[in-house]
Amino acid sequence: MRVSQLLGERYKEKPADASLISHIFLLRGGYIRQVASGIFSLLPPAQRVTRKIEEIIRQEMDRVGGQEVLFPVVLPASLWEESGRFQSVGSELLRFKDRTGQDFVLGMTHEEAAVHLARGEAKSYTKYPFMIYQIQTKFRDEPRSRGGLIRVREFTMKDAYSFHTSQEDLESYYDEVLDAYVRIYKRAGLGNVKVIKSDTGMMGGSTAHEFMYICDGGEDSIVYCESCGYAANMEVAVSTPPAPIVGEEKEIQEVHTPGIKDIESLAEFLGVLPMQTIKAAVFARKDNNKPVVVFVRGDLEVNETKVTKVVKAEIYPLTDYSESDLDFGFIGPVGLKAEGAEVIFDKSLDGLQNMVCGANKTDYHLKNVSVPRDLKDVKFVDVASVGEGHSCSFCGNPLKITRGIEVGNIFQLGDKYTKSMNMTYLDQNGRLQTPIMGCYGIGVGRLLACIIEEHHDQYGPIWPITVAPWQVHICILNNNVEEVRNTGMDLYHKLGSKFEVIVDDRNVSAGFQLADADLIGVPVRVIVSKRNLENGEVEVVTRDKSTKVNVKLEEVEAFISDLIAKMEAEINS
Amino acid sequence: MRVSQLLGERYKEKPADASLISHIFLLRGGYIRQVASGIFSLLPPAQRVTRKIEEIIRQEMDRVGGQEVLFPVVLPASLWEESGRFQSVGSELLRFKDRTGQDFVLGMTHEEAAVHLARGEAKSYTKYPFMIYQIQTKFRDEPRSRGGLIRVREFTMKDAYSFHTSQEDLESYYDEVLDAYVRIYKRAGLGNVKVIKSDTGMMGGSTAHEFMYICDGGEDSIVYCESCGYAANMEVAVSTPPAPIVGEEKEIQEVHTPGIKDIESLAEFLGVLPMQTIKAAVFARKDNNKPVVVFVRGDLEVNETKVTKVVKAEIYPLTDYSESDLDFGFIGPVGLKAEGAEVIFDKSLDGLQNMVCGANKTDYHLKNVSVPRDLKDVKFVDVASVGEGHSCSFCGNPLKITRGIEVGNIFQLGDKYTKSMNMTYLDQNGRLQTPIMGCYGIGVGRLLACIIEEHHDQYGPIWPITVAPWQVHICILNNNVEEVRNTGMDLYHKLGSKFEVIVDDRNVSAGFQLADADLIGVPVRVIVSKRNLENGEVEVVTRDKSTKVNVKLEEVEAFISDLIAKMEAEINS
Repeated sequence: MRVSQLLGERYKEKPADASLISHIFLLRGGYIRQVASGIFSLLPPAQRVTRKIEEIIRQEMDRVGGQEVLFPVVLPASLWEESGRFQSVGSELLRFKDRTGQDFVLGMTHEEAAVHLARGEAKSYTKYPFMIYQIQTKFRDEPRSRGGLIRVREFTMKDAYSFHTSQEDLESYYDEVLDAYVRIYKRAGLGNVKVIKSDTGMMGGSTAHEFMYICDGGEDSIVYCESCGYAANMEVAVSTPPAPIVGEEKEIQEVHTPGIKDIESLAEFLGVLPMQTIKAAVFARKDNNKPVVVFVRGDLEVNETKVTKVVKAEIYPLTDYSESDLDFGFIGPVGLKAEGAEVIFDKSLDGLQNMVCGANKTDYHLKNVSVPRDLKDVKFVDVASVGEGHSCSFCGNPLKITRGIEVGNIFQLGDKYTKSMNMTYLDQNGRLQTPIMGCYGIGVGRLLACIIEEHHDQYGPIWPITVAPWQVHICILNNNVEEVRNTGMDLYHKLGSKFEVIVDDRNVSAGFQLADADLIGVPVRVIVSKRNLENGEVEVVTRDKSTKVNVKLEEVEAFISDLIAKMEAEINS
Repeated sequence: MRVSQLLGERYKEKPADASLISHIFLLRGGYIRQVASGIFSLLPPAQRVTRKIEEIIRQEMDRVGGQEVLFPVVLPASLWEESGRFQSVGSELLRFKDRTGQDFVLGMTHEEAAVHLARGEAKSYTKYPFMIYQIQTKFRDEPRSRGGLIRVREFTMKDAYSFHTSQEDLESYYDEVLDAYVRIYKRAGLGNVKVIKSDTGMMGGSTAHEFMYICDGGEDSIVYCESCGYAANMEVAVSTPPAPIVGEEKEIQEVHTPGIKDIESLAEFLGVLPMQTIKAAVFARKDNNKPVVVFVRGDLEVNETKVTKVVKAEIYPLTDYSESDLDFGFIGPVGLKAEGAEVIFDKSLDGLQNMVCGANKTDYHLKNVSVPRDLKDVKFVDVASVGEGHSCSFCGNPLKITRGIEVGNIFQLGDKYTKSMNMTYLDQNGRLQTPIMGCYGIGVGRLLACIIEEHHDQYGPIWPITVAPWQVHICILNNNVEEVRNTGMDLYHKLGSKFEVIVDDRNVSAGFQLADADLIGVPVRVIVSKRNLENGEVEVVTRDKSTKVNVKLEEVEAFISDLIAKMEAEINS
């Protein structure tokens, strides 16, 4: 490839609407262009990286026995009705009608399509287990697309579906795929990935893991324990909060707390700690708009995902109290009036004494509430988030909280789809059985973006050799000098037969060429200049600046061959 | 791959709803399964063939300097409004709204997306010419999907777009791509492909060619001349119809023709030849529903596509005459009353004398109409179809008509998209210019289906080695005999390190295995049986039955290596 012909302008200025490093360099380096919110075209360098990532994924999927298939992007709604998801999934599922008025959806995940394909082809136990996968375009009508390729509406994804005759078999295969995922990230050069437990969400099933690329810009919170290795998404993480203060049970007392509506002001006003108060959070169910009132110890936060799981419905924070009996800022569990509301108590409240809480009366709170005494027959559930200073529930050591970007997820789905969609097989004894499933996803574009997040300097991406758009970048610094240009182009043709080479054949300044080379981020750079050629040499520099050496022209090919082999060995070691 | 694990059942019975050979074998061989009308999932063997075809296409596109990109499947309507196609294209363009109510379309072709991407990146003449291409999913809401992968709604397509600064440059590049297409079909093993002139249709532009795979089941009619090489789609083909009968001009005469409404009955009733009559065909414009009346010599047929081009609008045959002044069955050019209608005369009528035509009066026709005398100031255009017995307009020899399936098309688009979408560049003199474009498409699935149409016997496909799902198919005929099985599986592992191998490891009858092998259609078959192993041999058979020989076990690898090399050489010769 010649830079003069390469489609995709590079530029110096920081784009106005980008803050994530990967987003900035993808725009500045001529990798992606936005077509609509969350919808991008990929320019040639990005498409080259994409294909290399896809090939790594394909090889690892084949290695665990995967069979590549292709499902449609446009799926009939009838399939999603069979699984129940045509109704249960929100407006991120894009629905439309075709010219005949039939309902269709754009595939955002393909469990239904996988069962549809497999159920006609795997009617005997002898076919099991098997795994099918595809690498294809998906569409998810995200309300908040952002961060370049990090959160988009249209994306390329590898999605895999395995089918099993027993839970043990699913679990052992699930572990194999987990290992394959670890190999994929490693081979793609992404080092800082944590495997954590996650919510099963709209997928359903029992067990799920996410692969989290750890970085400050990440949109997910991750809880982990350095001692015992426990790691989970904040959405499902458990912890032991600081121990409560135990004392002698006192009598309930109403106190006047004019205009005091939040925990901090309340604790200060009454001279207690936040952990000596009971916090109320109010949500409403999306399906019927009925309120959900959640009580949690005052120093903890309510975790919306956990509440969703308890009430088994999507929820949203209630901001308009006018239609309820609730007294905003003064809601408490004792004497609560909330017609038709679900009331939920976090396990942090179990056994607490002498607590302050809302009196369900404007400008009044209660003191000395005793949970065992004043709140009888209450069931406690885990709906609080892990916070700073909490301990690991498994080993007691302090938990850490960090941020990350999800670069893959795997699920044990059980029979959620196979049962609802009537997939069966005959077992050894001729009995009809329902297979169980696992599913496994990786977003290709997001992985590409995270590789930049991990591998860059202030000038641009530093692509790992295994996914780099080209392996070698030749800069001909003096294209206007015929001899230099000819030597550079000869080298381009010679190296091009052995490596993937891009050559800067433009008659522009050295600074301009080198800045572009930094943005294109090719690992090995060969600089052909008038001065070095006088000694029959060129300069070989690695993009990460760890190597910078003059090499005789006749030795360049062997030198680069070694350099690339070393780079590959380092990644695969 | 083991046949025992391969997803995709094969079966003997002819599917009820399939008539095309490729459709039948794609279903029977476990290649595709329908998900909705014109929407299919690809099973592993079809996906493997698909990827090989894509790789051939990719290599040939790269060879003519193509840069691979990726455009979105979901495109904002605003882009299609810029080009005017959001309005002008019919309901085959699938339109929908996203969650925010904005209009989108599913990409059925990507001229708009290509200009959108290129216009920001190619602002100087130094970037030109360049070509970008993608291989991606497209959706076209076909009203009549049929024939398995031949006419579908969702399909994988390679679409390429080139940009130029002059018509000469476009033309010379267009020829390069034409040659690349010829190489693609050849390398994919498709021999019987004709390059013909075609209609530019909804794409616009001046010149277009189609690549037609010639076969009886094809849905397109192709006109060609064996003498001079002229070849064109029926939609645009020109010809010289049989010469008219010339005589002495006679006086117009009205004749009573009760109930005689078609040319054949009319000619018989009056004792003339159909070529001595004038036929009327009535259409209406889709944009304003106004009638279009077309007159053509009675022995010719009106070509709807040609009429569309003349009136510059989509049309449909008018069946309801109640709102017009037209007298169905008795329409004629003399004394025609047709308020607001466009009237078109085919060039076959130019100079004709003593013709019979409708009298625009129920149950009456006119005799002895002379076109030069009775129809003054008429402009003749070509709106007739080529028919049997016509001669080539270029060399005078008889034309032939055959049928074919379009497996590719290329267009010189001119500035249709670049102008409407304001794409410009600065030329050598610093002046703003509009580039011109070419576009080039190949449907991957349709190509796959046509390869089966050309390469099959009564038992299944005979895949060319270059696109075969596997290169070698080992049948272990006696899987229940441990020694035979072990030898077969050893061979599988040994050959598997050098070739793409599938092994039938099932404990089923020889007949069952061989029928499946025929449906999978792998070019080289190795039969491992108890009997042959007694002589230390296996049998090597090619799928086309041209080779059938016993080979010593230790010589199998070398033998197959030669065989495959020969097969490859034959295709690429």
